[in-house]
Amino acid sequence: MKKKTIAIDMDGVLADFESQLIDHYNTAYGTSLTKESIQGLSEEEAFKERDLLFKVLNKDNFFRTLPVMQDAVESVRELQKNFEIFIVSAATEFPVSLAEKVAWLGEYFPFIKWENIVLCGSKRIINTDYMIDDHCKNLDYCIGKPIMFTAFHNVNQTHHLRVNNWKEAVAVLNETL
Amino acid sequence: MKKKTIAIDMDGVLADFESQLIDHYNTAYGTSLTKESIQGLSEEEAFKERDLLFKVLNKDNFFRTLPVMQDAVESVRELQKNFEIFIVSAATEFPVSLAEKVAWLGEYFPFIKWENIVLCGSKRIINTDYMIDDHCKNLDYCIGKPIMFTAFHNVNQTHHLRVNNWKEAVAVLNETL
Repeated sequence: MKKKTIAIDMDGVLADFESQLIDHYNTAYGTSLTKESIQGLSEEEAFKERDLLFKVLNKDNFFRTLPVMQDAVESVRELQKNFEIFIVSAATEFPVSLAEKVAWLGEYFPFIKWENIVLCGSKRIINTDYMIDDHCKNLDYCIGKPIMFTAFHNVNQTHHLRVNNWKEAVAVLNETL
Repeated sequence: MKKKTIAIDMDGVLADFESQLIDHYNTAYGTSLTKESIQGLSEEEAFKERDLLFKVLNKDNFFRTLPVMQDAVESVRELQKNFEIFIVSAATEFPVSLAEKVAWLGEYFPFIKWENIVLCGSKRIINTDYMIDDHCKNLDYCIGKPIMFTAFHNVNQTHHLRVNNWKEAVAVLNETL
């Protein structure tokens, strides 16, 4: 039988974007943001200086050096037994991130083939059975079943099935088999 | 009413990949391939030295300097009046091409927003109403209606609706309105 498909986001889901952004933003701007201090804020509220935020995100190696999320590697490998995995990242806004993202995946997820990597803008045209993402802007319009991965900016959202970490994600998805 | 969506390929459809590849391959390998001499051959038959082909495709600026296909700019702009256009390129096999493709689109198609650019591997999960592409490996498995854009390697394929140039593509698509 054909395996069901899962689209998995990178920033905030496979990669710990939040820690890295806080670090780089604090260093560049002299702020003292912490994971706790930005809980429940939108990205716009947490990182108020949009120009500076974009400067940080456009810096060489920002995306290449993101820490990998806890349990992500083993979990994706586990899911790959029963699902076809696509990595789907909204990345075309930051051209410098594109090759870095492919290289980052090559380092941590070498078992994901290039055929299964999608660097896009809008995820509205991505047709997979499930989509794991941290952003409502993607989950609200996705074709498959949305699964919200907890992040500081989505903790007050209640309209999607939520998973708080990779162990929960694997459990929820394996239950559908 | 929501506009219907079209996924448009880059290499061989928006960009004249064939001319550039023949030029660079001949220069690097001392061959004398021409558009006429490779008509009806597969890519593997036309460009026999796979290692060299990959070396050419991985060279800096190969994708950034592709000529734009005749009538492509005006045609996409025309289609954009009645359709939502997504540019969908199978590019993750060549990481160096990724930022170059976004820059190339910025030069010739500045009216395409980053949200509508998809750099992917397999196009099986791209869900648009139409897909314009030159490769059976994409058209045979696409979700929407496939439209084959003529290229040297597909002239003997007869199982898809064919357009030979951008003027024909616009005529075929506008007829669906």
